[in-house]
Amino acid sequence: MTSDNSAAADAAQGPLVGILGGMGPAATVDFYSKLIAATPAATDQQHLRVMIWADPTVPDRSQAIVGRGEDPTAKLVEGAQKLKDAGAAFYVAACNGSHAFLPRVREQVELDYVSMIEVTAEHLSALPYVKAAGLLATDATLSAGLYQDSLTAFGVEPIVPQAADQHTVMEAIYAVKAGSLTTELRAQLIRVAQSLVAQGADVIVAACTEIPLAMTTEESPRPLVDPAVLLANRVVTKAGTLR
Amino acid sequence: MTSDNSAAADAAQGPLVGILGGMGPAATVDFYSKLIAATPAATDQQHLRVMIWADPTVPDRSQAIVGRGEDPTAKLVEGAQKLKDAGAAFYVAACNGSHAFLPRVREQVELDYVSMIEVTAEHLSALPYVKAAGLLATDATLSAGLYQDSLTAFGVEPIVPQAADQHTVMEAIYAVKAGSLTTELRAQLIRVAQSLVAQGADVIVAACTEIPLAMTTEESPRPLVDPAVLLANRVVTKAGTLR
Repeated sequence: MTSDNSAAADAAQGPLVGILGGMGPAATVDFYSKLIAATPAATDQQHLRVMIWADPTVPDRSQAIVGRGEDPTAKLVEGAQKLKDAGAAFYVAACNGSHAFLPRVREQVELDYVSMIEVTAEHLSALPYVKAAGLLATDATLSAGLYQDSLTAFGVEPIVPQAADQHTVMEAIYAVKAGSLTTELRAQLIRVAQSLVAQGADVIVAACTEIPLAMTTEESPRPLVDPAVLLANRVVTKAGTLR
Repeated sequence: MTSDNSAAADAAQGPLVGILGGMGPAATVDFYSKLIAATPAATDQQHLRVMIWADPTVPDRSQAIVGRGEDPTAKLVEGAQKLKDAGAAFYVAACNGSHAFLPRVREQVELDYVSMIEVTAEHLSALPYVKAAGLLATDATLSAGLYQDSLTAFGVEPIVPQAADQHTVMEAIYAVKAGSLTTELRAQLIRVAQSLVAQGADVIVAACTEIPLAMTTEESPRPLVDPAVLLANRVVTKAGTLR
């Protein structure tokens, strides 16, 4: 059927990369841009074959993690299945919060994914100057312990914002999603990053895909690590090995 | 099967919009950004459900139109079929040149598409100050007569660059695809647009998806019409009627 056709096509054209997106749509655009930028290509035909399943109606991951909203697993399973049906060799999710649900998706859809969070922790553990990493993430990503667990496993100390600062981070994230980020809110977010540095952070991890849209590398008081860029690089490498 | 599930899901969440992309990848990112910007939404969940099939290995549309390359129809049929299989209600192609092949795709895949070119011609015909439209497009889009035919049918005179100027347009388009556009080439492209105005153009149509990445609205000597923006608006309207 279609999967067999795709498998045959893969030999000639490289694997199909699946992207589980739409969470939010702007972060999906951002990730795909980074994937294109990470790909060594001079013509269209040298770029990766990609399928993006962008379903923004997936229930809010943050609300679900803190137990106040609908479980997004069923929708993520639907998306992963669509990617598999279309012939994807593997997939990635351009949304940190969704990683809390991906292990359960994997139980229902037999298709491997590359974890943005693990890729980030592995990358940071290889940088000799990094002992501790400050996390700018949603309440949910923090409360699910996604980055804390991975960083600790790789020997990097995670540092999270204090309560009032975390409130600012959430405000900034929802403002990016709504396209209503103000200059004042941008400035407040930078001050949160400065507090993380004061607490010992050697790098700032943009641990929510909306953060790099709210604070630039130049504005960050320490190197700003963008997990989406690290994931894009990993996808290019992995797709290369599957050719 | 999956299609039935999608049909049931459509009632609650709106239709799935298919995007046949990857031609080139940067233009696909650009179109999806424009679609997000055109959507009235304050939260992720209010955005459209989108599937993007981005296969950059589709043979060069320009080469095929002028009879020097492989026919891209089979690859476009594959993409349209993937979009249909996943439950798309209709699709659009964020590549002008591909429109030369879409009628043949439609013969093989029973899924409606919205033509970016017809949407543009219809839009321009409704603007009272527009008698003639200057076209910045690939050699192939021009030689296939895609915009000329649609504009003429809607009562707008098409104006195309002279041969030397058209060479500059092609250089700029391939430079955008390769990420190697120079300031000098940008300036030359603006001079081509000025020549079109000298020939009577009331608007400049960015009739290749790479043109808006090479020349801004501010740089254009007359209003720069971006068919991708017009198509994005039409998609939002059409998706709304299918809810």
